[in-house]
Formats: sequence, structure tokens, C-alpha cells
Amino acid sequence: MGLVIRKIRAHDLRFDLHDGAGSDAVHTDPQYGYAATQLLSESKTQGTGIAYTLGGGTNLVAQAIELLSEPLVGREIEELMADFGKVQKSIAEHHQLRWLGPHKGVIHLALASITNACFDLWAKSRQVPLWKLLLDLTPNELARLIDFSYLEDVLTTNEAIEILAEKLTSRPDRDEILKQGYPGYDTSVGWFAYSDAKLIENAKRAVDAGFTAMKLKVGSPDPADDVRRARLVREAVGPSVNIMTDANQAWSVPMALDVCAQLAEINPGWVEEPTQPDDVLGHQTIAHAIAPVPVAIGETVSNRVLWKNFLEAGAVGVVQADCTRLAGISEYLAVTILATKYPVKVIPHVGDMGQIHHHLVFFNHIALGHEKQFLEYIPHLREHFTSPAEVLDGAYQLPQEPGCSTGLTALVES
Amino acid sequence: MGLVIRKIRAHDLRFDLHDGAGSDAVHTDPQYGYAATQLLSESKTQGTGIAYTLGGGTNLVAQAIELLSEPLVGREIEELMADFGKVQKSIAEHHQLRWLGPHKGVIHLALASITNACFDLWAKSRQVPLWKLLLDLTPNELARLIDFSYLEDVLTTNEAIEILAEKLTSRPDRDEILKQGYPGYDTSVGWFAYSDAKLIENAKRAVDAGFTAMKLKVGSPDPADDVRRARLVREAVGPSVNIMTDANQAWSVPMALDVCAQLAEINPGWVEEPTQPDDVLGHQTIAHAIAPVPVAIGETVSNRVLWKNFLEAGAVGVVQADCTRLAGISEYLAVTILATKYPVKVIPHVGDMGQIHHHLVFFNHIALGHEKQFLEYIPHLREHFTSPAEVLDGAYQLPQEPGCSTGLTALVES
Repeated sequence: MGLVIRKIRAHDLRFDLHDGAGSDAVHTDPQYGYAATQLLSESKTQGTGIAYTLGGGTNLVAQAIELLSEPLVGREIEELMADFGKVQKSIAEHHQLRWLGPHKGVIHLALASITNACFDLWAKSRQVPLWKLLLDLTPNELARLIDFSYLEDVLTTNEAIEILAEKLTSRPDRDEILKQGYPGYDTSVGWFAYSDAKLIENAKRAVDAGFTAMKLKVGSPDPADDVRRARLVREAVGPSVNIMTDANQAWSVPMALDVCAQLAEINPGWVEEPTQPDDVLGHQTIAHAIAPVPVAIGETVSNRVLWKNFLEAGAVGVVQADCTRLAGISEYLAVTILATKYPVKVIPHVGDMGQIHHHLVFFNHIALGHEKQFLEYIPHLREHFTSPAEVLDGAYQLPQEPGCSTGLTALVES
Repeated sequence: MGLVIRKIRAHDLRFDLHDGAGSDAVHTDPQYGYAATQLLSESKTQGTGIAYTLGGGTNLVAQAIELLSEPLVGREIEELMADFGKVQKSIAEHHQLRWLGPHKGVIHLALASITNACFDLWAKSRQVPLWKLLLDLTPNELARLIDFSYLEDVLTTNEAIEILAEKLTSRPDRDEILKQGYPGYDTSVGWFAYSDAKLIENAKRAVDAGFTAMKLKVGSPDPADDVRRARLVREAVGPSVNIMTDANQAWSVPMALDVCAQLAEINPGWVEEPTQPDDVLGHQTIAHAIAPVPVAIGETVSNRVLWKNFLEAGAVGVVQADCTRLAGISEYLAVTILATKYPVKVIPHVGDMGQIHHHLVFFNHIALGHEKQFLEYIPHLREHFTSPAEVLDGAYQLPQEPGCSTGLTALVES
């Protein structure tokens, strides 16, 4: 008999940022926050799960965690995870609470946090880090973690198992990454509120620190400001560094087409969140217009059904699936397998500061054969994690501690 | 100087249903609930707004109302409504809370309730019912109630004004409806938990009460049950009555195609919510397959951006926009004007029991020239409204009292 979930606690954690960090075209004065789930067992081993927020309203997600997680009390973790796709579905389809989504918003963020806590407790109970937990599962066991409902027209459970199975024999060819580490890219270069001087200084410093890719926030009321800042960064880092632009939904579709045409001169690595994230056909229009520059989107794409639509429509070139926005690691796996089928690149958004996601990109490379990309790196909250992701020479190092790297110092004593 | 909003209260109201009423393929034991907003002024006049829920989690919406409505305290109602589109946008784009959507789920339901309360207070301050308030506004004034952001590629503010303006001269041709009343259709015939005998009895009684259209819940685990029940109703009411079927998202896309083919024999008036409501392309596939039977959807379509996608994709034949799901009457107006452009029929879902929506269908017919349809009628909560919608001989009667008919008996004393 393994660990039994005896008690569940939900937490509203918010952290202030300073000096313009985190600011973009839409989020002028962000906090970063987590709606955290703590699964307490009879031993000292706890599971911690997180869903990422921008501060305000985190209490709503914490309360939704309490409402939705109730059926998990008393469950043994191995038995729970043996068929977790069904558990997910039963929570997501709660006969009254599903109305508040379905599969989106506050209740879906709550399910993300709950799910991630279950994976953390499971990995700890097996005393392995998440990436190893997932790599050690068979394709059948992996598939049973996932709720495939509403995907059947493009991805059945059996197809998912086949996609995983056919990559098994070539896995050793890709194990090298475990020693190399996984490249990161620096998002903290060009926050919206940063002065031109700070932007240039940050960009140069990122190159010196080993990063070959960085992100620049765009979406200014006056597009000339976007173009000016983009030129400054390009001049500072030279032609070979990848500069990804991110509008944080600031544009209408016509505005996106206009500004993207102007930004083409700096050859952006991608255009991220050009407009509202439910606008699949709007993104399709933009994707066609700016090709071969890809559209990147994900931090606010709520669920696998919307991802299915983005992929079917050819509206996305970089899937920034985020397991703290989607219904946790389970729904992330659904989306990443789906993207493998098309295929479209997966480069997660790191609402978790890269904590869970650095496990997941090692998994994606080895188990799904995804080409090595780079994972977003945002260090602003790293001191709040008990085991912050380690980035050396621009590369995430392989995490070794059991669990999902979701331990938070604020919860150690509670 | 008109009424000033002095205090805002949020309420979590839930009402039990009985004997299987309200049950469908997904909602096995529903309550009906409202997250209600009360706007208190210095006089006895209050505004009441509602967002509809299925009971569980209504407290989360009520708390979100408190968070989001704060900037409205101290605002004078005429001044507020003179540019309400901007007010809506400033709330919807709250720099921290928008992360919890954006434009969906708990925070969007809260905005629905807040918005509807503003319209109620405004109509009462002018001492007119909502339908008259809206009909008396100029196209420019109407457009200023709406946040058109993210619609610019398919509907600009100017286009919306033109659509409204070009219908002005022909309005008198359509005024007749104010005397005739607006036809209703009966949803309470075929709830999922009802026995075959009760189903037949209800269907016959609805015809006797003057209804020429009714709804049957489908989406059974065994499609043979759907077909059997559909046949029973068709036999009971004869070939001329309109039987609309409603699966409440129970099907995958392949399952929907299969069962719809089987249900074709009873010639359904529409197929409602065949699958998950974010699945625009899935609905497009189903719509093409079952034409000329239309796909109806709306009670869980979160916002105008998703509606834009449904309309662009030809994925919907009946727009069941609901102002207690969308961001209130404002976003309902955006969607109904957008649907006018395509054109696609608008037949609102009545999460409000038809209270606000019977005002809105009179408006749609006169101001937008929409053909007369029928409005859903669900009477289960009518005793909880201070002025319940009046349905005579199967037709909604024109409401005469000032406001949006959103007064709730539970709030009279509070």
C-alpha cells in the first residue's frame, strides 16, 4: 500500500515584482502568483501542485481547488494514477461546476493545480524526478493519464499509444540530452517598462550569459515604438541571435498584420500572442500572412479542444502549451502528443518559472522525438522554490530530486 | 444629476429543482443559480443583474463580482452608460484578473452580472423597460454600449452603426410584434430523467398550451435511447410541430455524426450543443454533415471572439447567444449585430428564464429586422422573479415595467 491522500490544502500565494519586471503591453503592474495545492499524506511526503496567475483573483482559484479536489481525499496515489485520465474527466465534468467553464478559466486553473500536485506526490512516492517517472511508464500507462475526450476526431487513445510506441527503440539516440542539459532562452530582456538603455544592456548581458535566444515585448499603442525597440535589440546582439517578439494579445487582427509587416525587418524568431487567444481563425490569417515567421501561442490557450482547433487550422507554428494553464501535466501530455502528430513544435510557456516544464522538455525530446529547442527562462521567482531549476551557460540542467520541482518555500512550514 | 451607484452587493443564489427537471446528458442533478449584482443608489431605485449558473461555485462568481465592480462605486448612471463599451473593456482587461480568463469562465460571468445590473439601473432611472430603452437609443448611442475590440476584422464600430441605421426607416413595419407578443418554445418537455410516459404527456400538453416547438434532450450513452425517445415525441405531436434536439455536449465529433444520422428520421428542428463548445471546427464538420438541419449553440459560448469564429467558419445555424453567459447585454448586442451581418438566426438561450431575453428578442426583431422566431421558455424559477415573464397562448407578452425584469424576490428585503 502506497501513500494515501489524507488532507488537501489550497493556498493563494502572490509575489511582488519590482522595477518594471513582468510588464508587457497588457499587464502593466503584474504580481506573479500561484494557486497551490498541497496533498498531505500520512508520511512526511507531500505533493505540491501549482497553477500560475498574475496575482489578482488567486483566491478564487484556491477556493475552486477546495471544491474540486474533495473526491481525492482517501485515495491511494498509485491506484489514483493508474487511471488518472478518468479521474481528470470526472473532475472536469463535475455536473454543476463544469458550467463555470467548461474546461477554462478559474475552475480549469484549479484542476491544473490539483493534477500537478497528484503527479508530484506520485513521483515522490516512487522517489524519482518527474522526467524519469514519465520516461519509465509504458505507452499504455502514459495514455491512461490522459483524458482524450473531445479529441477523438483527430487523436484516439490508440493513436496516442502508437505515437509513443514507435519512438521507443530510438530513445537511446536521444538520451544524450540528459547530460547536455536543455537550452534556455531569456524572457527578461525586454519587459515593456524597461528603458532603451536597460533593454540594450540586458540583451548584451544575456548573450554574455550564453543565451542565443531572447524575447522582446511588443504591442505598443504606437507601433513605431515597437519597431524602434526591436531595431535596438537587433543592433545590440547582431544577426545570429534569435529575437522572439511577444504582443500579449495587444492587437486586433488588422493591427497585427500591419505591425508584423513592419517588424519583419528584424527577422523575428516568432510573433507571440498577436491577438485574443480564442481567435483561431484570426491566428490562421496572421500565420498565413507572416510565414515563414511562425505564430507562437499558448499561455492563455485554455484546453486541448482549442489546441485541436489551432492545429487543425494551421494557426500556430509554436505550441506554447503550459501545464499550469491546461489541466496540468495530463492535459499537457494530450496536447504535446497531438502536436507531435501534425507535427508542430512544442516550446512550453513557463508559468511555473520552468520548474515543471524543464522536466517535460527532456521527456518530449526523448519520448516523443521532438527536436531540441529552447525553454523559456524567467528567474523572477526562483528564490521562492525549494529546488529552483538550475540554468548553466544558458542551459537547464537535468533535475535530480524526486517530484516535479514544485516545492515552495512558503509552504515548507505549513 | 441622475442616480449615483453608492454601494454594490454580490449574491450567491441557488434554487433546487425537483423530480428530474433540468436534467440532461451532462447535468444529472442540477440546481439553477444566479450570481446576482445589486447596485444601490441614494434612492430606492436599485439595479439587479444576473449571471446564470448550475448552482455549484456560484460563490466564486459572486466574489469575482466584488473584485471587478469596485470601480463603479460613485459613478452616475447616465454618465456611465454614455460610454459603457469603454467601461466594459476596462473591467474585462483588468491587468491582473484578465489572466483568469481572458473573457471566459468565472470572471466573465461576473462581468455579465455587473453589466446587466447597470442596464437595469439605467432603464429604471429612465423609467422604461429595457426593450424601449434600447429602441429609443440612436445607432451611435447603441454602439457606444459595446466593446468591439478583437472584432475589427469582421465588424467595425462604423459597420455596426450602419447595420443599425439602415433598419431605422422600416421599423414601423415591425412594430406589430409589440402587440402580438413573441412566440415561445417549451424546453421542459423532455428532460433527460423523464420517463417515456411523462415525455409523451408533456409533449401533448405543450401542444395544447399553444406551443408549436419544443425541445428534447438527447446524448444518451446508448444512442438507441435517443432515437426511441425522439420517435415517441414525434408520434405524440405529429409532423408539423418543431422538435429541437439538444445533446448538451455529450458527443465527440464522430459520435455526433453517427447519432445525428440516426435522428434525421424525426426531422429535428435543430441539433443543439452536439459537442464541446470551444470546438469551432468540430461544429463546422457537424454543420456540413447534417445540413439543412442547423447546428444550434450558445449557452456555453464564452465571448464575442468565439462567436466571430463560429460565424466565420459557418459552424452555427442558430446563434443561442445568452447575455447571462456573455459579458451581459453589451456583448449580447455585439454578437447579435455580428450575426445580423452574416446573416445567421439569433434565438437566445434563456439562462435568465427569459426575463432579460424577452426584452432582447423584441429589440432584435424591430431594430435589426430579425425574422420572428421563438424564444426558449423554462418556467422552473419563475416564482423567484418579482415580475416573471408572462407567456400566454405560447407567446411572451411585452414587458411593461421599467428595467430588465431581473428583480428577484430573494433580494427584495436585502
